[in-house]
Amino acid sequence: MDTNIDCYFIIETFKLARRGEGIVSPNPLVGALVVKDGKIVGRGYHKGKGRPHAESEAILDAGDEAKGATLYISIEPCCHYGETPPCTDLIISSGISKVVAPIKDPNPLVNGKGFKILMDNGIEVVTGILEDRAREQNAFYLKYIRKRMPYVILKAALTLDGKIGDPKRGIYEITGRESLEEVHRFRNRVDAILVGIGTILSDNPSLTVRLVKATHEPYKIVIDPELHTPIDAKIFSERGDIIIATKKEKANKKYTNATIWIFKEKKGIIPVKEILKKAGEFGITSILLEGGSHTFTNFINAGVVDRYLLFYSTSFLGSGVPFLSSPLKRKQLETRVKSLGKDILIEAFNVYRNN
Amino acid sequence: MDTNIDCYFIIETFKLARRGEGIVSPNPLVGALVVKDGKIVGRGYHKGKGRPHAESEAILDAGDEAKGATLYISIEPCCHYGETPPCTDLIISSGISKVVAPIKDPNPLVNGKGFKILMDNGIEVVTGILEDRAREQNAFYLKYIRKRMPYVILKAALTLDGKIGDPKRGIYEITGRESLEEVHRFRNRVDAILVGIGTILSDNPSLTVRLVKATHEPYKIVIDPELHTPIDAKIFSERGDIIIATKKEKANKKYTNATIWIFKEKKGIIPVKEILKKAGEFGITSILLEGGSHTFTNFINAGVVDRYLLFYSTSFLGSGVPFLSSPLKRKQLETRVKSLGKDILIEAFNVYRNN
Repeated sequence: MDTNIDCYFIIETFKLARRGEGIVSPNPLVGALVVKDGKIVGRGYHKGKGRPHAESEAILDAGDEAKGATLYISIEPCCHYGETPPCTDLIISSGISKVVAPIKDPNPLVNGKGFKILMDNGIEVVTGILEDRAREQNAFYLKYIRKRMPYVILKAALTLDGKIGDPKRGIYEITGRESLEEVHRFRNRVDAILVGIGTILSDNPSLTVRLVKATHEPYKIVIDPELHTPIDAKIFSERGDIIIATKKEKANKKYTNATIWIFKEKKGIIPVKEILKKAGEFGITSILLEGGSHTFTNFINAGVVDRYLLFYSTSFLGSGVPFLSSPLKRKQLETRVKSLGKDILIEAFNVYRNN
Repeated sequence: MDTNIDCYFIIETFKLARRGEGIVSPNPLVGALVVKDGKIVGRGYHKGKGRPHAESEAILDAGDEAKGATLYISIEPCCHYGETPPCTDLIISSGISKVVAPIKDPNPLVNGKGFKILMDNGIEVVTGILEDRAREQNAFYLKYIRKRMPYVILKAALTLDGKIGDPKRGIYEITGRESLEEVHRFRNRVDAILVGIGTILSDNPSLTVRLVKATHEPYKIVIDPELHTPIDAKIFSERGDIIIATKKEKANKKYTNATIWIFKEKKGIIPVKEILKKAGEFGITSILLEGGSHTFTNFINAGVVDRYLLFYSTSFLGSGVPFLSSPLKRKQLETRVKSLGKDILIEAFNVYRNN
C-alpha cells in the first residue's frame, strides 16, 4: 500500500473536517472520503450534534461505488448507538474493503472497538498515519472526552518587549490585520471566549467573530468576582451569550441577560480550575483566553493552558502593561513560528499536550 | 550572460569574504574569485589592514589564467593608493575581461570610480547582483565609512514575556547552547562589546569569544558614570582590552589597565551618541550591545541601534527584569525569524537600514 497516497487522502479528510469548525462541538471534527481506484467517489463531513456522521455521508455519497472501495476518515468510526446508528454497521454493509483512520476515538464507547469490529468483519484497517495532525485538529474533543474540561488556548498580542498594551497611549491594536483575522478564526473555532474584568473595563471589547465568516458565535465568559462589568458593556449589545463568573450571589439581579456562575474565592481569586470544571459541565469544550495580564498569569499558574497563540508585533513599547503579572515556574514549551503580515506568531504547546 | 551563474559565484565570494570576520576592521570584508570557462582559477579574500586585497590575491592565484577571465568580487575594487596599490591597475594589466561586483564601495576615494576606470579600459562591469546581501555582509564598513560611527547590534536573551533575567532566581542562561554560540559568533565579528555597569555588577561577565573559534578579541566597553566597576571584575582578568566610559576625571587612577573615556553627563546619563562618536574616532566600526535593560533603552531611545538580535527562550518568567525600562516611541521594524535549538531568534533591522 502506498503511504503517500494514504497521506494525501487523509489530508483531504482534514480539510473536509474543518468545514465543521464552530458547529460540531461537543463532537469531533470529522471528514471522510470514499476512494475507489485512486478516485474520490464519496465525500462527507460532520455538521454537528444530531446530524449524520462524516463516514455515513461519504458512503451514501458514493452509493454502489463504495463496494470494494477504501474509506478515509480523520478519526476512528463510531460503533455505538448515539444520536445516529453505529457507522461501523454501515461501513460493513456498504462493502468498503479498507478503512484508513489516523487515530482512535478515545470516547470510552469506541476507543478501538470501532477498528476491531471492522477487522473482525474482514475489513483492512490502517491507522497511525499523520497521527499528530489528527490529534491537533481534534485537540478540543480529545481533551474534553477524557477530562470533561475545556481545551484552553491563551491568545495574546504583544510587543517584542512583552507588553500587551499601554493605557497612557489609549486603546490601539498592537498587531496587524493578518493577526486579527487569525484571532477571529480561532474565536470561531472555540465554544467560548474568556476575559477577566480588567479587559472589559479597559478595552470594552465586543468579542465577536467579525473578520472571518462566523459559523457560530462563541459564549463570552467574564471573570468578574465583584460584578464590575457595566450593564451597558459592549458584550451585552453584541451577538453571543454572556456568562459571568463571580462570587456574588445576587449577580442575576444585575445581569438579567447573562448566565451567572457563582464560585467561592480562594486566596482572593476564583480558582481557575473551578471555572473550567463548571464550563466543562456546561458543555464548553474549548476556550480562547483573551486577557488580561492577571487572568493570563492565573491560568498559566494553574497549569491549565494547553496552547498559546502569541502574536508579536515587531515593535517595542518600553512601558505599559506586561504580558504576565507575577512570577511563574519556568517551563519549557514546544513552539512553532510563522509570519503574519509584519507580525510574528509564536505558537506554544505544553510539552505534555493531550496525548 | 547567465545571472544564475553570476549569483552562484558572488555567493562564493561572500563565503570567502567571511573568513576575514573579526580581522579586517576598519576595512570591508572582501572575497574574490577569478573564473574562466565556468571554472574557478583564482581565489582571494581580504585578511586585514595592510594585507593584500582580495582581488589582487585572486588574480595572483590565477596567474596567466586571468587573461580573458571574469573577476567576481563582493564589493567594488579600489582605485586609489592606500596601503596597497590600486587594484584596478592590476585587474587591467592582468587581462581580466569582465568584473562582477554587487555594490559600489562608498569610500569617497572609490565610490564608483573603480567601476568607471575598468569600463574606460574596455572591461565589462556587472553590478547590482545580490546587492542586499552584499550590503548586509559589509554593514559595519558601509556605515562607518560614511558616518565614522560604529554599527550597533543590540543582543538580548529574553523569555516570551519579555524578561531578560530575574535576580531572585540568581544568574542563569535564559537561552540554550545554540543561541549562545550565535552570540559568540557575533562577538567575534564586532570590534567591541558594550555593557552598562548594571550588567557588570549583576552578572560579572567575562565577555570573551569562547564558544566559537576566535579570530580576535573585541574591546569591552563599560558605561560606568560613577566608576562602580570592581577592580577585580572578571573582564579585567580575561582576554581583551577594556574601555571605561565615565564622567569621573580620575578614572585612570582606579583602572590602570583600562582605556578611559571621559564624558559630560546630560540629564543624568552619558549621551549615547557621544560614546559612539568617541568609539568611531577610536577606530571601532561595530559594537555588540549586550545589556542591560537601562542601556538597551537608552540606545534605542537615542535611535542608534542598527540591528537587533532577540533570542527568545520558549518559556515564561512572569517576574524579573524587563527587556526595556522606560517608554519608547513605537516604531515598526523589519524582522527575520529563525529557530536555534529550542530558542527563537528574531532579528530586527531599523527600516531605514544603512542604504
